[in-house]
Amino acid sequence: MSFETSVGTADADSITVMGRDLAGDLMGKVTLTELAFLMVQRRLPSAEETRLFDAVLVSLADHGLTPTVLAARLTHTGAPESLQGAVAAGLLGAGSVFLGVVEDTVLFLDEIGDDVEGGVARAIEAGRRIPGLGHPVHKVQDPRAPRIYEIADETGLTGLYLARLTGVSAAHAKRTGTKLPINGAGVAGAALADLGFPGPLLRGFALLARTAGLLGHLAEELHSPIGMRLYREVDERAMYSHPTLRE
Amino acid sequence: MSFETSVGTADADSITVMGRDLAGDLMGKVTLTELAFLMVQRRLPSAEETRLFDAVLVSLADHGLTPTVLAARLTHTGAPESLQGAVAAGLLGAGSVFLGVVEDTVLFLDEIGDDVEGGVARAIEAGRRIPGLGHPVHKVQDPRAPRIYEIADETGLTGLYLARLTGVSAAHAKRTGTKLPINGAGVAGAALADLGFPGPLLRGFALLARTAGLLGHLAEELHSPIGMRLYREVDERAMYSHPTLRE
Amino acid sequence: MSFETSVGTADADSITVMGRDLAGDLMGKVTLTELAFLMVQRRLPSAEETRLFDAVLVSLADHGLTPTVLAARLTHTGAPESLQGAVAAGLLGAGSVFLGVVEDTVLFLDEIGDDVEGGVARAIEAGRRIPGLGHPVHKVQDPRAPRIYEIADETGLTGLYLARLTGVSAAHAKRTGTKLPINGAGVAGAALADLGFPGPLLRGFALLARTAGLLGHLAEELHSPIGMRLYREVDERAMYSHPTLRE
Amino acid sequence: MSFETSVGTADADSITVMGRDLAGDLMGKVTLTELAFLMVQRRLPSAEETRLFDAVLVSLADHGLTPTVLAARLTHTGAPESLQGAVAAGLLGAGSVFLGVVEDTVLFLDEIGDDVEGGVARAIEAGRRIPGLGHPVHKVQDPRAPRIYEIADETGLTGLYLARLTGVSAAHAKRTGTKLPINGAGVAGAALADLGFPGPLLRGFALLARTAGLLGHLAEELHSPIGMRLYREVDERAMYSHPTLRE
Repeated sequence: MSFETSVGTADADSITVMGRDLAGDLMGKVTLTELAFLMVQRRLPSAEETRLFDAVLVSLADHGLTPTVLAARLTHTGAPESLQGAVAAGLLGAGSVFLGVVEDTVLFLDEIGDDVEGGVARAIEAGRRIPGLGHPVHKVQDPRAPRIYEIADETGLTGLYLARLTGVSAAHAKRTGTKLPINGAGVAGAALADLGFPGPLLRGFALLARTAGLLGHLAEELHSPIGMRLYREVDERAMYSHPTLRE
Repeated sequence: MSFETSVGTADADSITVMGRDLAGDLMGKVTLTELAFLMVQRRLPSAEETRLFDAVLVSLADHGLTPTVLAARLTHTGAPESLQGAVAAGLLGAGSVFLGVVEDTVLFLDEIGDDVEGGVARAIEAGRRIPGLGHPVHKVQDPRAPRIYEIADETGLTGLYLARLTGVSAAHAKRTGTKLPINGAGVAGAALADLGFPGPLLRGFALLARTAGLLGHLAEELHSPIGMRLYREVDERAMYSHPTLRE
Repeated sequence: MSFETSVGTADADSITVMGRDLAGDLMGKVTLTELAFLMVQRRLPSAEETRLFDAVLVSLADHGLTPTVLAARLTHTGAPESLQGAVAAGLLGAGSVFLGVVEDTVLFLDEIGDDVEGGVARAIEAGRRIPGLGHPVHKVQDPRAPRIYEIADETGLTGLYLARLTGVSAAHAKRTGTKLPINGAGVAGAALADLGFPGPLLRGFALLARTAGLLGHLAEELHSPIGMRLYREVDERAMYSHPTLRE
Repeated sequence: MSFETSVGTADADSITVMGRDLAGDLMGKVTLTELAFLMVQRRLPSAEETRLFDAVLVSLADHGLTPTVLAARLTHTGAPESLQGAVAAGLLGAGSVFLGVVEDTVLFLDEIGDDVEGGVARAIEAGRRIPGLGHPVHKVQDPRAPRIYEIADETGLTGLYLARLTGVSAAHAKRTGTKLPINGAGVAGAALADLGFPGPLLRGFALLARTAGLLGHLAEELHSPIGMRLYREVDERAMYSHPTLRE
C-alpha cells in the first residue's frame, strides 16, 4: 500500500515539486509567492494573479507589536537557540480572534449569496457583527482595502467575493446610516477567495505572510530585545492578591 | 518607558512597515520575498539579490513526505480546525538534524577562514563530518547546488561563502579521494550568508520557505488525507512488548 | 496600572503559589495532581476528589502510537535538542477530532438538561452522533468507563454529569436497540465536570495527562527510535503522481 | 516490519500502559506523578521516590508572570478556541535561558566527577558561570533548595548529584568568599538525576510541571484576562523609529 502525493519527490539526480523539475523549472524562474500558489492550486499563477496575491501577502505580513509578535519575542527570550519555537509560538495565536475574520468574511459572503441586501439586513436584525467591516484603529478607512481593490481592478481580478464585499459595505451603510470601512483582513479573505483558494486554507496564507513578519521582529529582537524587559516590567507591576480574596 | 521598534506601526489613516507606507509603497510594488528581505535587512534588495534569494527560498520549500511534513499532517488529522497548529507542528522539527546544516555550513566557513585547505585537513583528521557536503539521496550531485551557483554567477552575487564552500568541496575531494556533492542545505546557507543575512536567522528563511511547502501538503491532506491512514497502519503494525522484557 | 494575578509571586525569601507558601505548605505536602486542582479551582481537593481526579488523568495519559505521539516522535527526529518542541508538537494535535469528545460530551449533557430521554431522541432523529458513546476499538465496553464510575461511586462523587451520561447511554440503547459503550473521553469529561472544572479548560487536563504520556514515548524514542524509520518507510512507499493527473 | 513499543497498547477489552492493565492496575491506584515515573523509568516508584518526585514537580510548576506564561496568555488572546496552542506556546520558551539550568547543573556535576574542589576551581578560573548557583531574586536563599534537601534527607534519597551540588556550593563559597544560594532549577536537576532520570529528559519534567502551572494561568486568563491589556499597553507605548535612523 502506497502513500500517494503530488507535492514532491526526489531521485538521485533530480527533485520534483508539484510536477516541475525544481532546479530546472522553478529555481531562478519563480518567486516564493508563485511557488506557494503552485503548491496549493497545482498550477502556476498568471502575472496578474501573482501581483494581486503578492499584494495580499504583503498586506498581511505585519501589524506591529501584536499579541502574536509579543508571544514570539517572549519565547525567543527563553529559548533563543530554537528559532523554530519562537516562530511557531508566533503563529499559534493566529486563531479566531485576529485571523478568523479572513475566513469569516468569506463564509458570510458564501452564506448571503446574491441576496446581499437581504443577507445584510438579516444579520443586522439578528444583532450579528458583520465580518470584514470595521477596524478599531482605522475608523474611517483601512488603507489596505482600497489598495487591494485598486490592484484587483488593474489586474482584472475583481471577482465575486470582492464585488460582494463592496455590496455588503454599501448595504450596511444604507441600512444603519453608519459607514464602516472594509478592513484589511476582510478584503484579504475576499481577494484570496477570488484568486481561487479554498476556504479552509485561507488562514494559511496569513501564516505564510506573518512568518516573514515574525522574522523581522526576531531580527530586531536579536539587536534590540524587548522580551526580557517586557517580562521584567510585568513582573514588577504584578499585583498579587490572595485567591480567596478575589472570588 | 517605551518599547522601541522599527518594524511596523499604524495610525488612523496609514500603516508603516519598515519605514515604508504599506499601501502606497509596498502593496503592489514588492513581492513577499522582497518584503522578507526588507524586514530583516532593513533595505529592499536589488533585482539580482531578489532573484538569488527567491531561488534559495524555492530550493528550501519542500522535500516530499519528510518527518516535519508528516508531523504537520498528523497534527491536522487531530485538529483540522487549527491550521496554525498543524503549520507550527511542521516547523518545530526544523532543528539540528535537518536544518542545522544550513547554519553549520556557515559556521564552519567562518571557522576555517581563508585557510580552506588547512581547515578541511584538520576537520578530516579530527574525524569531523564537514557540513554542507554529502547527501543520502543525491550521491553524485544535489541538483540545487549547481543551480544556486549558476544564479549567483549570473547575478554577480557569488561572495565569500559560496566561493569558500567550493574550495571546501575541492579540498575535501583532493584529500580523501572521494568527491562528495555540495548539498542543498549547505549551498542555501552559504548563499544566504553572501546575501548578508545574519547567522542566527538563517534557519528562519528555511522556516519561511517550508511554510509554503507545508501549505501544499495541508492542501493535499484536505482532499487526499494520509494522516489517519498512516496512524492506522502504524497502530496495526505496532508490536507491544512488555517493558521488563526489553531492558 | 498593575497586572493582577493570584497564581504566584515571589520575594527574596519566599515563593507563593495560589496563596500558599511553596516550600512550606506545598512541596512535600501535595502531589502534582493536587497542585493542578489548586491552580484551577483555587482550593485544594479532598482526598476523594484527588482520587477521582488522578484516575481521570491516568486514564487520559496514553493511547499508544497515536497521531499526536507520532507527531511528537517525528519532531524529535529532526530537533532532538528541543524537547519542548517535540512535546508541543505532540500537544498541538489534541483538537476537535480526538479530544473534542471530552468537551462535546459535557456540552451535550448541558444542552439536554434533565430531559435525557427527549434530548437523546431529538439527537437521534436529527442524525447527530451522540458524543461520549461508542469507540472504534472498544466496541462492547471501554474499560475506563466502568472504572471511573466505580471510583466515583466509592468516593461519593458521582454527580450530575456522570449520572446523566449513564442516562444518555441507556436512552440511546432503548431507542436504537444498539448498546454503545460509554467511551473513555466521554466519561473523563463528565467526571471532570462533576469535579467542578470549567468547560473551556477540560481539554487542558487531557493535555496535562498526555504530557506525561509523551515523556514516556520520547524516553522510548531515545533508546528505540521509530521516527526516522517511519519517515524512511513512508518515503520509500511514497507514490508520486503528477498533479494534473489527479484532478 | 513492525513498530516496537512498550508504552501502551489496547485491544477490544483492555488497555495496557507500560505493562500494566490501565483500568485494573493503574486507575484508582497510582497518581499522575507515579504514572509519569513509570512511563520513563518503566517501574513504579517507591513511596519515598514519589514524595521527592512530587516535591520537585511542585517546585517547578509556577514562577508567576514569566515570559513563557505571558506567551501562553497572549496566544490565548488570539486563539481562545485552541487551548492546546496556548499551552504549546507556553512550553516553547522552556529553552536554554530558563530551563537550561536544570540540565546544565547535572552536566556540570557529571563533568567535575569526584574532584569537586578542583572542578569548581577550574570553572572559576575559566570565568565560567557555575550552573545551579545564584538567583536574581532569591539572593540569600532560594526556599526550594533547603526544602528539597530536607525531603531527600527524610526519604533517604540524597544521592551523588544532590551531595555533589552541596559540595560545589561550599567549594565556590570557599574559593570566592561569596556565598551564592543553590537555586531551584539546579536542585531540581540534581534531585531528578538522583531519582534516576536520564539527562536528555530532565527538561521534560519541568514541561510536565509547567503544564499544570499554565492551566492555572489560563484559568485565570478566562476570568481576569491580561493578554489583551498587555498588548494594548505595549502598542500604546511602542515608539516607532525609522529603520535607517537606528543603525
